[in-house]
Amino acid sequence: MKVADRGRIDPFIVMEVMRAAGLREAAGGDVLHLEVGQPSTPAPAKVREAAVAALNADKLGYTEAQGILPLREALAKYYRTTYGVSVDPDRFVLTVGSSGAFLLGFLAAFDAGARVALASPGYPAYRNILKALDIEVVEILAGPETGYQPTPEQLEAAGPLDGVIVASPANPTGTILSEAHMRALALWCQRKKVRLISDEIYHGLTYGARATSALEITDDALIVNSFSKYFSMTGWRLGWMVMPKDLVRPIECLAQNMVISAPTLAQHAAVAAFDCIEELEANRLAYARNREILLNELPGAGFKEMAPADGAFYLYAKTDHLGDDSEALCRELLEKTGVAITPGIDFDPSRGRSFVRFSFAGSEATMVEAAKRLKIWAQAR
Amino acid sequence: MKVADRGRIDPFIVMEVMRAAGLREAAGGDVLHLEVGQPSTPAPAKVREAAVAALNADKLGYTEAQGILPLREALAKYYRTTYGVSVDPDRFVLTVGSSGAFLLGFLAAFDAGARVALASPGYPAYRNILKALDIEVVEILAGPETGYQPTPEQLEAAGPLDGVIVASPANPTGTILSEAHMRALALWCQRKKVRLISDEIYHGLTYGARATSALEITDDALIVNSFSKYFSMTGWRLGWMVMPKDLVRPIECLAQNMVISAPTLAQHAAVAAFDCIEELEANRLAYARNREILLNELPGAGFKEMAPADGAFYLYAKTDHLGDDSEALCRELLEKTGVAITPGIDFDPSRGRSFVRFSFAGSEATMVEAAKRLKIWAQAR
Repeated sequence: MKVADRGRIDPFIVMEVMRAAGLREAAGGDVLHLEVGQPSTPAPAKVREAAVAALNADKLGYTEAQGILPLREALAKYYRTTYGVSVDPDRFVLTVGSSGAFLLGFLAAFDAGARVALASPGYPAYRNILKALDIEVVEILAGPETGYQPTPEQLEAAGPLDGVIVASPANPTGTILSEAHMRALALWCQRKKVRLISDEIYHGLTYGARATSALEITDDALIVNSFSKYFSMTGWRLGWMVMPKDLVRPIECLAQNMVISAPTLAQHAAVAAFDCIEELEANRLAYARNREILLNELPGAGFKEMAPADGAFYLYAKTDHLGDDSEALCRELLEKTGVAITPGIDFDPSRGRSFVRFSFAGSEATMVEAAKRLKIWAQAR
Repeated sequence: MKVADRGRIDPFIVMEVMRAAGLREAAGGDVLHLEVGQPSTPAPAKVREAAVAALNADKLGYTEAQGILPLREALAKYYRTTYGVSVDPDRFVLTVGSSGAFLLGFLAAFDAGARVALASPGYPAYRNILKALDIEVVEILAGPETGYQPTPEQLEAAGPLDGVIVASPANPTGTILSEAHMRALALWCQRKKVRLISDEIYHGLTYGARATSALEITDDALIVNSFSKYFSMTGWRLGWMVMPKDLVRPIECLAQNMVISAPTLAQHAAVAAFDCIEELEANRLAYARNREILLNELPGAGFKEMAPADGAFYLYAKTDHLGDDSEALCRELLEKTGVAITPGIDFDPSRGRSFVRFSFAGSEATMVEAAKRLKIWAQAR
């Protein structure tokens, strides 16, 4: 029987790495997980308490498609205090993680055949979701000279566009768009009537530089964010969008039909997330220490050229001195040292074989031990 | 800025009715909810207990894209005992409700431009999700003479098809495909190499007749089900598919990219759902009593012609003796009696103005009071 062409998208390689790591663990081997793009902490204590309370008090039926009003109001307050912008709660929609946000956002903004630009390296799911929805992916090869971010000049040269996706802090590089760079991109999109989608999922996880929200500059962009990273709630599957006014109704109708509503328990619990800033800042400081450890130690293992990791919890390192196949390198590292990292081809199909991504979302002890083993491996090589 | 044409899909009218009902309640009016397609019961007690245990024991990160193995094994066991079929746990994928299953299933099976047949009346989200994914909807007008279900003859006459969606028990009619009817459809699809998608979300909620799973007949069909209805876990957003072997890998890759994984807490909790059959059967018996009440009382309010409601928790009633606009009728009923029901246009764009759907998923007291008010309204009319 026929399988759809658009169903034949690439696997998400990091999940394949996780599977190999899991097989090693199942066979009794130990694994240091530097491949996983998620916090090793659970949801904050008050969120878990709120979840238990909701389990006892609520029937946990569907909510309205946009999500419960108290959470949309809490988000509006968060945007006021964090970014100094005033947003109507009706411009928020709660989604099934940022994944669910991309699906609804892409469908509302782009017809089949639309052309959407994004930077390589970048989050592989953008590409794969766009392809599954018959949207043409226009890759902008970005390098260290522009902080691995696209520029208006590159967009201008990319031919007619319907949309642009930017991510700041970015995955896998951790780079942040300066306010001026974000402004230049947003204004270019506004002038060209190109839909800007700003993935702000790593906001909150920064180590010095400030991350600007596109919402500080324009009301035309579609802002994507999630409780998964800073708020440490990956498996709860709860994200959100701030919608430009013209997309509110289409996204609402799409959500009614394609999702019904985001997980109810997660919605009730997440209202408490904004009262947990102390705990979340402690998490961030732990990431900052992990980052320092890897930045100090990895050069001793031969990983010397890295993107400036101003945010998120990743280091993107050049590996061309170790050969032209970082996928084989990752397999070798897992086998010989138990350190699991992700090859760059997940993020950059054309140049990723010369890069790997380290995640420092794990524990400090994991980072210390991984660095030690990688240095021993490098010396023996 | 441009809004995508495929973003302009119809709203899900039942959610609009819920909004009108909510406004009435907010203004101090009372509402008898016979519009809502979800159980009024919470998840079974043991499921809620398992959720609290998982909240304390687990970090609730992502799971593998197909879902946790213990739940897929529990599902395999459930299929053995319920349908007498043996299914490899690797053929199950946990999804974000049945909504998430349709998205992944449709993308894996159908390219843009594919032609997929379904019966009208039917669940409106099929149509709307298919349209959003640029798949052509081929409506089969089904009536009482075939239990509101499509026949092989109708499919044969529909021109070249890539897929067929059947639902048994069906929404909004509650009708069930006999084993022979399901077999005829499945074999026709097999012979014609047309992908059969069998929506079995209302399995378990039957009142005499048995619901056959397409899996009893063929391994080529894509089976969609969910914990939302029989297992009373709507807001947990957890469904599943049994995948034909050729779709396992495409659906896994799509899930990795488009979902990452289904809600983790719901997955852990749902393992306990299969130990709750006593509580769930008590729910079913309550629905059976509600069904009797409406079947006995509604004719006295003028609703006489109904589809045979052998399953689910709906009655689909003809209203052409009350005019040619059931949407206006529903508004009038809500305003004058506080009884909220759903107009048929949600389910049947061409003939739905002569039908309404009653849901008997609410409490017995609600059914009794609604029937009383409808009879008074009918007498005063």
